[in-house]
Amino acid sequence: MSLPSLRLKANADRRLRAGHLWVYSNEIDVAATPLGGFAAGDQAILEAAGGKPLGVVAMSPNNLICARLLSRDVKHVLDKSLLVHRINVALSLRERLFDKPCYRLVFGDSDLLPGLVVDRFFDILVVQLASATMEQHKEDVLAALIQVCKPSGILLKNDSAARDAEGLPRYVETPFGVVPEWVALEENGVKFEAPVIEGQKTGWFYDHRMNRARIAPYVKGKRVLDLFSYIGGWGVQAAAFGASDVMCVDASSFALDGVERNAALNGLTDKVACVEGDVFEALKQLKASEERFDVIVADPPAFIKRKKDQKNGEGAYRRLNEQAMRLLNKDGILISASCSMHLEEDNLQNILLTSARHLDRNMQLLERGSQGPDHPVHPAIAETRYIKSLTVRLLPNS
Amino acid sequence: MSLPSLRLKANADRRLRAGHLWVYSNEIDVAATPLGGFAAGDQAILEAAGGKPLGVVAMSPNNLICARLLSRDVKHVLDKSLLVHRINVALSLRERLFDKPCYRLVFGDSDLLPGLVVDRFFDILVVQLASATMEQHKEDVLAALIQVCKPSGILLKNDSAARDAEGLPRYVETPFGVVPEWVALEENGVKFEAPVIEGQKTGWFYDHRMNRARIAPYVKGKRVLDLFSYIGGWGVQAAAFGASDVMCVDASSFALDGVERNAALNGLTDKVACVEGDVFEALKQLKASEERFDVIVADPPAFIKRKKDQKNGEGAYRRLNEQAMRLLNKDGILISASCSMHLEEDNLQNILLTSARHLDRNMQLLERGSQGPDHPVHPAIAETRYIKSLTVRLLPNS
Repeated sequence: MSLPSLRLKANADRRLRAGHLWVYSNEIDVAATPLGGFAAGDQAILEAAGGKPLGVVAMSPNNLICARLLSRDVKHVLDKSLLVHRINVALSLRERLFDKPCYRLVFGDSDLLPGLVVDRFFDILVVQLASATMEQHKEDVLAALIQVCKPSGILLKNDSAARDAEGLPRYVETPFGVVPEWVALEENGVKFEAPVIEGQKTGWFYDHRMNRARIAPYVKGKRVLDLFSYIGGWGVQAAAFGASDVMCVDASSFALDGVERNAALNGLTDKVACVEGDVFEALKQLKASEERFDVIVADPPAFIKRKKDQKNGEGAYRRLNEQAMRLLNKDGILISASCSMHLEEDNLQNILLTSARHLDRNMQLLERGSQGPDHPVHPAIAETRYIKSLTVRLLPNS
Repeated sequence: MSLPSLRLKANADRRLRAGHLWVYSNEIDVAATPLGGFAAGDQAILEAAGGKPLGVVAMSPNNLICARLLSRDVKHVLDKSLLVHRINVALSLRERLFDKPCYRLVFGDSDLLPGLVVDRFFDILVVQLASATMEQHKEDVLAALIQVCKPSGILLKNDSAARDAEGLPRYVETPFGVVPEWVALEENGVKFEAPVIEGQKTGWFYDHRMNRARIAPYVKGKRVLDLFSYIGGWGVQAAAFGASDVMCVDASSFALDGVERNAALNGLTDKVACVEGDVFEALKQLKASEERFDVIVADPPAFIKRKKDQKNGEGAYRRLNEQAMRLLNKDGILISASCSMHLEEDNLQNILLTSARHLDRNMQLLERGSQGPDHPVHPAIAETRYIKSLTVRLLPNS
């Protein structure tokens, strides 16, 4: 297979040699290799300005990130064989880490498979193809996953916004086997079912697994509030870890049906209550009715999706966390999470400190959590690190 | 008890109101309240420029940090009663977190007890007094600890360099009960004995407890190398978690005697080998003899003790980690730790990435660990956050 060349400008190879995988369109020597000569999904040999080959890239010629490194070895183009190899490398890490086959199996660039995300729920796989290159290799991806994982069903959850930029249609389909509406998984020894077809993203957020595991010593025997609960990832685990009672708040009745389903799965129905409504409104009402909690989990959807949302988003994190702090008992624990890549951990920490000082409470930072190891961070690509979870203790100022 | 005033210059109260606890000597209105009027160890009422009281401070008039906030309530001066209260607040957190009474019970500023560190080993307490104020209140500190913890022995390990700056002599003594040379503790379910009198610092480093717990899935059935092993905190736990064999390297034969003692305590003598010598030399020899490991722990002493050591220290971290990477098998795990407050986590991550690229290996960042929650971070005092532990996977570049 002979691939066309993509030539970089002088010195544009430095960042890539230092470990990065992305090529920006303004780094291309377009006189030598016009981007118009490529179609979305093509593969090419990336070359330094002097002509030295740097590896194989997947092309997105119409995007700011116009190419992503697939391999530093020009012999390794994307095909079923490379997919099988990379998926096996990804699998061997997850099998070492987890005793049940429930995890993110493939995490895009971090597993050297840009544009591919695979979440595994025992023998069901939920796949997201986010690039034209992966979309073109859909059959290879499916064949490789079937060969490596022997699943009973694969769902293509191809409905993310990332596809629009690649000129790809959004669709959800089951190209292999059978995928039920609710799919079983286990996390930290607790049973769940996730709505992989109708739910958010792939149906479940494995990324907070380690942070959820760490709540055990804090929630035992305590009253817990789970804000933006979705289907109970935090709340049902808190109950399973021995919380005296848990209140889950979410605006979606579909999500809260999931909470009830998951509480029942673990025999915890009497410990978990659901409140449907806007979280900020619910916080006000809980304050007005003088409800108090020992532990509050605030794990909202991304308030800062783009850089331009920075100021408003930070304000939302501030309001959420400060209102939550007001509901804490004298010696209270707040677990404040963020999945906004644009909100730095130090920034979230400062937001919490400012809120604590505003309420004249003393704050200790106990734990700093990040995404679990089935979501490896690519050390050169800041965007692959996005989960933050800060556990703080709020005390009276005495 | 009437305390003298310590008056701040205009606006110097801002940082303190925002949460910080330290007062710098150049922030004092020395015309109103000359620092020469205070003795080391005095308490004072800190006042804003306008005279508003901000709280009670402990004085170190000859230091750059000339005062530390003990309380934001002027009624709460440091005495036995406040010590009992603060130690109880600290204890309640640790009792919630750990099932055995083995932990850092008091962590200075973060537990609102500046200058006091207490490590607990079942019924033995090891105490460090680092400020003149705490030294003056030694009898109150001991009485409060005896009242709250009912220990069988207390060791005053007052031999840290921090004492010199306060004009305090260095000494080690047993002011209460009996303290044996080797003291039992348990961490992550593994038994240890620590040399609290002869060993480093308080004899044991509880700060890496959580990071050591996380090595379990990585070391099972694997060959492990523990660099700067001290008495086997990482290495013996790796063996207890199922490593096939562990090699501990340290320059101190006393430390390695501790490794052997701790391996024997857990019936792991046949799994743990010791190599005495300079770690950098040992790495060269292991390379020359073509030894390979699946998992390497590199947890050196602080290479950057002061800002002026930054460049040399970073070089040392770079050499250590790159030499360690050379000893890893094809799919290897490196756990790279640092207790240098001056080495930022991102900086350590970059050092690892640079080394990996230098060796043409692909690196995934799997875990980012910090000090355990018995070493709370004071969110306004960056100096209270010092432990980093990065777990990376090194793969061939293919």
